[in-house]
Amino acid sequence: MDFIGSHILSVDQFDRADIERIFGVADAMGPYANRSRITQVLDGAILSNMFFEPSTRTRVSFGCAFNLLGGEVRETSEVKASSLSKGESLYDTARVLSGYSDIIVMRHPQSGAVAEFAEASRVPVINGGDGSNEHPSQALLDLYTILKEMMSRGESIDGLRIALVGDLKYGRAVHSLCKLLSLFDDIHYQLVSPPELAISDEIVGSLRSAGHTVDEYFELEKGIHQVDIVYVTRTQEERFPTQEEADRYKGLFRLNQSIYTKYCEPNTVIMHPLPRDSRSQAQELDDDLLQNPNLAVFRQTDNGVLIRMALFAMVLNVADQVHNHAKPVTWYTAKRFN
Amino acid sequence: MDFIGSHILSVDQFDRADIERIFGVADAMGPYANRSRITQVLDGAILSNMFFEPSTRTRVSFGCAFNLLGGEVRETSEVKASSLSKGESLYDTARVLSGYSDIIVMRHPQSGAVAEFAEASRVPVINGGDGSNEHPSQALLDLYTILKEMMSRGESIDGLRIALVGDLKYGRAVHSLCKLLSLFDDIHYQLVSPPELAISDEIVGSLRSAGHTVDEYFELEKGIHQVDIVYVTRTQEERFPTQEEADRYKGLFRLNQSIYTKYCEPNTVIMHPLPRDSRSQAQELDDDLLQNPNLAVFRQTDNGVLIRMALFAMVLNVADQVHNHAKPVTWYTAKRFN
Amino acid sequence: MDFIGSHILSVDQFDRADIERIFGVADAMGPYANRSRITQVLDGAILSNMFFEPSTRTRVSFGCAFNLLGGEVRETSEVKASSLSKGESLYDTARVLSGYSDIIVMRHPQSGAVAEFAEASRVPVINGGDGSNEHPSQALLDLYTILKEMMSRGESIDGLRIALVGDLKYGRAVHSLCKLLSLFDDIHYQLVSPPELAISDEIVGSLRSAGHTVDEYFELEKGIHQVDIVYVTRTQEERFPTQEEADRYKGLFRLNQSIYTKYCEPNTVIMHPLPRDSRSQAQELDDDLLQNPNLAVFRQTDNGVLIRMALFAMVLNVADQVHNHAKPVTWYTAKRFN
Repeated sequence: MDFIGSHILSVDQFDRADIERIFGVADAMGPYANRSRITQVLDGAILSNMFFEPSTRTRVSFGCAFNLLGGEVRETSEVKASSLSKGESLYDTARVLSGYSDIIVMRHPQSGAVAEFAEASRVPVINGGDGSNEHPSQALLDLYTILKEMMSRGESIDGLRIALVGDLKYGRAVHSLCKLLSLFDDIHYQLVSPPELAISDEIVGSLRSAGHTVDEYFELEKGIHQVDIVYVTRTQEERFPTQEEADRYKGLFRLNQSIYTKYCEPNTVIMHPLPRDSRSQAQELDDDLLQNPNLAVFRQTDNGVLIRMALFAMVLNVADQVHNHAKPVTWYTAKRFN
Repeated sequence: MDFIGSHILSVDQFDRADIERIFGVADAMGPYANRSRITQVLDGAILSNMFFEPSTRTRVSFGCAFNLLGGEVRETSEVKASSLSKGESLYDTARVLSGYSDIIVMRHPQSGAVAEFAEASRVPVINGGDGSNEHPSQALLDLYTILKEMMSRGESIDGLRIALVGDLKYGRAVHSLCKLLSLFDDIHYQLVSPPELAISDEIVGSLRSAGHTVDEYFELEKGIHQVDIVYVTRTQEERFPTQEEADRYKGLFRLNQSIYTKYCEPNTVIMHPLPRDSRSQAQELDDDLLQNPNLAVFRQTDNGVLIRMALFAMVLNVADQVHNHAKPVTWYTAKRFN
Repeated sequence: MDFIGSHILSVDQFDRADIERIFGVADAMGPYANRSRITQVLDGAILSNMFFEPSTRTRVSFGCAFNLLGGEVRETSEVKASSLSKGESLYDTARVLSGYSDIIVMRHPQSGAVAEFAEASRVPVINGGDGSNEHPSQALLDLYTILKEMMSRGESIDGLRIALVGDLKYGRAVHSLCKLLSLFDDIHYQLVSPPELAISDEIVGSLRSAGHTVDEYFELEKGIHQVDIVYVTRTQEERFPTQEEADRYKGLFRLNQSIYTKYCEPNTVIMHPLPRDSRSQAQELDDDLLQNPNLAVFRQTDNGVLIRMALFAMVLNVADQVHNHAKPVTWYTAKRFN
């Protein structure tokens, strides 16, 4: 695809070559994200970071990524604090906001809302998550993390064995990741969920017809053996009709160190899109895994900054100019990336 | 008036020459707002963008305008997230906040609150809307839009025929626009509202005594004939004593393409301060007008950025320096302004 | 202590020499805070300003202080708008957020939460207030104000006589200020509160064992005589188990001009951490004191910017470089500091 000036709405937009280009740019962002250098390549550009649903991690990650490229960020972090509550259409909001900034990131509780918004926008729009539909930057950072983890052991994504665990019905991160992985060769998907929260037959069908192997499991222990990656998700409470229904599934699948030791391979990488639910009734990923070197969840969020910087740089056509605007860092910097 | 270091609280501050100066500066902001160039003239300056009432459009518009001049923006977007909820007086808030930034934009639900705040502030304050009282930057951008629309057909504001439609009682945008227009010669106002939401006799009186023509209508069809501009407003629900009372007036006056074709002149310009209420029970301005080239509502919001940049530049005395700090844009820019 | 890369969590970290170093750097920040010059020393650096409890003053003060040094600010201003509401642990939040920015300021409603957060953070964390526990930058700006007020009359902090009035049980500002003052010599504390809101015996004991004089009073008039400083606080409503209980103490101690004239010394300095509660049932510091030249409450908040700039500059190790990145101000600047 041509990234310049394009909306980034869905992982369906990407083919394998596109992904490799994004990851190449993300690699080049490393020195700026870990503060070996700073760049001012987007000095003067403005991002409208429009979050019409609560979010800290993704909102701040996008905002910081834009700041790291030298740009400014304007923000909305709540649907109430917005003219949407006065009955304004997405079309109007998009026409208006796109007169203010150079690019827009948008999160919205309704599936399809970001695409509808983008259609009316006069500047590029990046989907920051729309309901249970899509969250393309999350899927990209997950895949980028998988690639880096596999490369660190001399392997590639082709032939990957991955277990996806939890709420596979409402988890948009899982849907998008499955799609992206299917661009590679010979993926073994092990889908582990309560029967009621299984992934849709449609997705399973499309993975199989693309030549991949898909097995479904209803028990954690059986589903996580012999995999390179175990990707755990939380119950997407906010997508359920009622809280009671959501609570029924909390804590059903819990991965902890003893289960990991017993059922996973010694170097199975543990991933999670975060936030994980650490309340006692949930704990889908136990705190006792924090010392496990294969726990990659914070490498995922660190990688998210690189991916988001790459998307901004490619859409705004400055990927090649980043280094021309580089300067040394003159303040104290912690060693943050490990 | 002398703009340098002044508060901008009310359209009453301006005479016709002031308005022409503001519009001249706004014209000069075009290349920066549409990203032909960037400027860093306010590099290092800080705006406190204090919105003690929900707003997306106006808040982001002011914030982007300041960023477009190179400045930084600190923001508050809710009254709850504020020390006002701990019983602090406006005086104290103003004394404190004015020690933090170079200029303050403030929106507040109470009429007169911004002026009270400004009195205690040690830095210039721009009124971003105070209850049903004033919203001077909105009135300026409306007038600026009227001027541009009239000029594009070789006419001027003098002699303008304008219909103002909807909630004329609580609509501060209308009040301020009426006042600004009355600085020009021979304006024909056609005021169209339910009797209970008519504009105050005081305003009508002052328009007439300034030599203008004012006619009042209670039916849409009769009020919008033979005008250059039809300016529609939404019912200001949040200003009504109860929601029930507000609902009574929703959807009373609806302008759509067929009514437009039947009753307006072929080139009557359609304006609205936005947000317009697109819910089925309201729809004061129908979506079927989107293809009408005389629909100027998005030109209004685009012009809002220019007007707000002009106000910042004039109050902070950098209008003459903008071009000295200009640089080319090196990233992808959409063609946003039409 | 070594400030470079350190967390600033508690006034317990500082000895007298540390405080004097902070105040020296704060002095040097004056020209930048009052806009005689601007500096870009932190150009490219990012602050995550994380307020998980309502605050305007402290949040904007930290944000502006970082902007005044040339850095960018990303912000969260509500606990609801956060992944904490999805059950995320402080540990996870810290690990994630510390991958995004160079430094974090955090406010949290729970005592100890900021320290817990800091333990997991990979970048320096400054405590912006954690429940009724600590608020070190407030204590520093209070002490800095006391020093400047005393110096302006040719005196020092040693031998200071100070009355602390109000809710001394829940007021974290008072706790921290008491500790900081106790690093100096021969302080006379006059503690004035309802018996139920008295400061803890533990704090009184430690002040006495450090060689200071502590007297407790339950009546305002008796407690504020013969002091250099009277430091009044509001009832910390949000810390009380119920609103009813908080209301019981509102308005018990009210300092106004006539009481001041009758019981204070002619040059007793009046301080308050702000916000003060100006509702009629509270008014712990009456508006009729606004004309009193000894009212230092707005000098306190102005000093807060200097202190926060100093902390940022020292932790990020740029205190010595500030002047190298200085530029003249080219826009209108109000005379804000008095």
